Amino acid sequence: MKLVNRKVSQFVAAGFIALTLLTVTSATASAADATPNFVIIFADDLGYGDLGCYGHPTIRTPNLDRMAAEGLRFTQFYVAECVCTPSRAGLLTGRLPIRSGMCGDTRRVLFPNSAGGLPAEEITLAEALHDLGYATACIGKWHLGHLPQYLPDQHGFDEFFGLPYSNDMDRTNDGPKGRAAFDEPHSEFWNVPLMRGAEVIERPADQTTLTRRYTEAAVEFIKEHRERPFFLYVPHTMVHVPLFRSPEFENRSARGLYGDCVEEVDWSVGRILDTLRELGLAENTLVWFSSDNGPWLTFGQQGGSAGLLREGKGSTWEGGMREPGIAWWPGHVRAGVVSQELAATLDILPTCVALAGGAAPTDRIMDGYDISRVLLEEEASPRDHVFYYRGRRLMAVRKGAWKAHFFTQDSYGPGAKQATEHNPPLLYNLLHDPSETTDVAAQHPEVIEEIRRLVADHAAQLVAPPSQLELTLP
Amino acid sequence: MKLVNRKVSQFVAAGFIALTLLTVTSATASAADATPNFVIIFADDLGYGDLGCYGHPTIRTPNLDRMAAEGLRFTQFYVAECVCTPSRAGLLTGRLPIRSGMCGDTRRVLFPNSAGGLPAEEITLAEALHDLGYATACIGKWHLGHLPQYLPDQHGFDEFFGLPYSNDMDRTNDGPKGRAAFDEPHSEFWNVPLMRGAEVIERPADQTTLTRRYTEAAVEFIKEHRERPFFLYVPHTMVHVPLFRSPEFENRSARGLYGDCVEEVDWSVGRILDTLRELGLAENTLVWFSSDNGPWLTFGQQGGSAGLLREGKGSTWEGGMREPGIAWWPGHVRAGVVSQELAATLDILPTCVALAGGAAPTDRIMDGYDISRVLLEEEASPRDHVFYYRGRRLMAVRKGAWKAHFFTQDSYGPGAKQATEHNPPLLYNLLHDPSETTDVAAQHPEVIEEIRRLVADHAAQLVAPPSQLELTLP
Repeated sequence: MKLVNRKVSQFVAAGFIALTLLTVTSATASAADATPNFVIIFADDLGYGDLGCYGHPTIRTPNLDRMAAEGLRFTQFYVAECVCTPSRAGLLTGRLPIRSGMCGDTRRVLFPNSAGGLPAEEITLAEALHDLGYATACIGKWHLGHLPQYLPDQHGFDEFFGLPYSNDMDRTNDGPKGRAAFDEPHSEFWNVPLMRGAEVIERPADQTTLTRRYTEAAVEFIKEHRERPFFLYVPHTMVHVPLFRSPEFENRSARGLYGDCVEEVDWSVGRILDTLRELGLAENTLVWFSSDNGPWLTFGQQGGSAGLLREGKGSTWEGGMREPGIAWWPGHVRAGVVSQELAATLDILPTCVALAGGAAPTDRIMDGYDISRVLLEEEASPRDHVFYYRGRRLMAVRKGAWKAHFFTQDSYGPGAKQATEHNPPLLYNLLHDPSETTDVAAQHPEVIEEIRRLVADHAAQLVAPPSQLELTLP
Repeated sequence: MKLVNRKVSQFVAAGFIALTLLTVTSATASAADATPNFVIIFADDLGYGDLGCYGHPTIRTPNLDRMAAEGLRFTQFYVAECVCTPSRAGLLTGRLPIRSGMCGDTRRVLFPNSAGGLPAEEITLAEALHDLGYATACIGKWHLGHLPQYLPDQHGFDEFFGLPYSNDMDRTNDGPKGRAAFDEPHSEFWNVPLMRGAEVIERPADQTTLTRRYTEAAVEFIKEHRERPFFLYVPHTMVHVPLFRSPEFENRSARGLYGDCVEEVDWSVGRILDTLRELGLAENTLVWFSSDNGPWLTFGQQGGSAGLLREGKGSTWEGGMREPGIAWWPGHVRAGVVSQELAATLDILPTCVALAGGAAPTDRIMDGYDISRVLLEEEASPRDHVFYYRGRRLMAVRKGAWKAHFFTQDSYGPGAKQATEHNPPLLYNLLHDPSETTDVAAQHPEVIEEIRRLVADHAAQLVAPPSQLELTLP
């Protein structure tokens, strides 16, 4: 129980009340043999409408389409927050980022001069599975703290290969000023470090080959760990601007540069699934695909599409937080299921840990649900609500079909407007009106009352530590 | 050659120059045995984003999804105009409605007091195929003229069962005023006639069972004509408001009333395809699915969704004229093809006539292309442009990836704004920017010049007869 002991000491050291419960059920080595592997492939800034199987007209994603056809495709799958850092914190902890301090008001993500990161007392999916005997790797973009104490190896990952933060950070003086640098990007315009473990091995990272190198590393990891349970987390750097792809994918997509990059991520998914098939691991591996948040619309043609959903990255309209969500596990998840059940990246930790024979932490509030029976039995989801945070402000809440916006605010990036408060809240029936066009608050005061009670319950339990994102290096 | 003789005499009588060429290649009875059947299933006001296989999150369309999975799904498939009457005129004649007078400026569709209709000298797909030995039926909404001289039996259809025009016409004094009548619609609120041949057999039509009765009639027609080539045209009344569905489909869809109606149309598609399969006709029948124009957005939750496309019905933004387009012909059209080739309802006539061993009319300008090799060989489309008319005004032109808007005007229905002229035109790259968000006219003057030449060529050839839609009964 090395993990829990380490966590306890850190927890106490951090000045919080001591843990009284062990957080992860122990697993024996023999049990591990029967447990499934897990792979999470997580794109960056990919929109709900950017895949063929979600309706994009000119981006070809045959591998993801096949993954969906062989598995389960969610149509109401949510991320934990509408920008990068908090979304990833939610994915890996199964907890809303407000609970870990991984969201902020003035700074919405971590930057190269940030001093904060995912607190040690948080239990990541990697830690939980590591304690159950899993080999673990993070291959791709981390963005949960780049100081040594916050890197993946401090959060349960045996291996890390990738960028510590976003690929548009560490802007150099090279190239054209402002947005023009993104139009014809060169790796030298951004002095982003590529890391292996805790070491920087290349700087600036050659961004053109990142997707390919991540994929090769992921395939290698699978091959090396074919004999034991593994958890492989592949948070792609793409399709976050600046957009880069391998020479093989240049001008490949009718959709242009953005499409090229999506199609290379799709290729990567195909390589990973093919590797699992070739090694005979497909029926013993649950693979998830999603993205961290909606498309960065202010980048125009370099941003993606939320399809029929309103708005994109950084906003709590549906386009900011509803994402493609695909689960693939041949022989376990039935092929060709299109699920309208509510699900979220927050649910991945409880689900994987349960499938691995463990249990989610019980000493803290978890926001995720074990949705394994949604996947395996197509049962109704235990999730009936979604909280939409923007930084530390609760903007909107979904309960069943209904979504109430207490605040709205457009977009993320230059020109984003101030928040507008709504009292009574705007109310949409998301099943009938997925594009959030018709406010029906006046017709459904009882729904608003019910959502207000849910908000009150949530607020009464909420302990929000100080933001990690506002901490900067001296 | 009865058809052509009749056409010639009508053509002369109408005061136009005499035909000098025969219009349809003759077919022998023996050739007909080897020719495929054709079915066109045409929804009403269905949006690009309203089917599962085009990305809708809460409407379930398993039959259309299966049709797409077994056939070819277009992602750039256009209708001939952005409202009902002209769109259908284009579909059935393979010619832009401006050429037949089937569009208007003050009246955009035919109404119960209209005196006009599809001119007799137009050659419909039904006439062309009838001359090639096909049995023909129109089962559903006609809307190309309801006076006796304009009914389907005057345009090549052996049988007609359906409504002569839209289901929201002939408003009675029953029920609530204005839009409220649509919220809880009853058939008695609209005194719409249901016709068989040239006879009214029910008035008001019981709209709740229209989709089911159309389907039963379509299945019956297929069974009766299984031994000879047939052309079955099923232009559904749904999903045009007022929305009605059979009791079996009440509250069936998570999407509410609109979704119930789409799902019943989907059921209908399944019944028709199952009938073809059961009778062993699947490999000898090409089935098309599309809709007449985009979603009627001003009806809010009773209108559909254009997915990621901008605007809807009545507008020449993509959402008004780009539609789902599926072609199914087991053993001939390869399963699972997603085609980004340009295609249009205008192309259906030339394609079907060619596949039937005939030839499209050569005595008049045709706007459709034979796209059979797109379907059968997955070759590049012969179509490289789209004209976007709104009534008699050419609003926009697509050439390859590029769309130039010379005029824009939103929506159709109450509150539609006046047209805005653009000089230079707005220019969008539809492959890169399907949502038409980023005007790139300033960067591509050469593209605008090329499109202007295309417009000039088009205008130089255009003979626009007087509008049939502006003619009213005394």
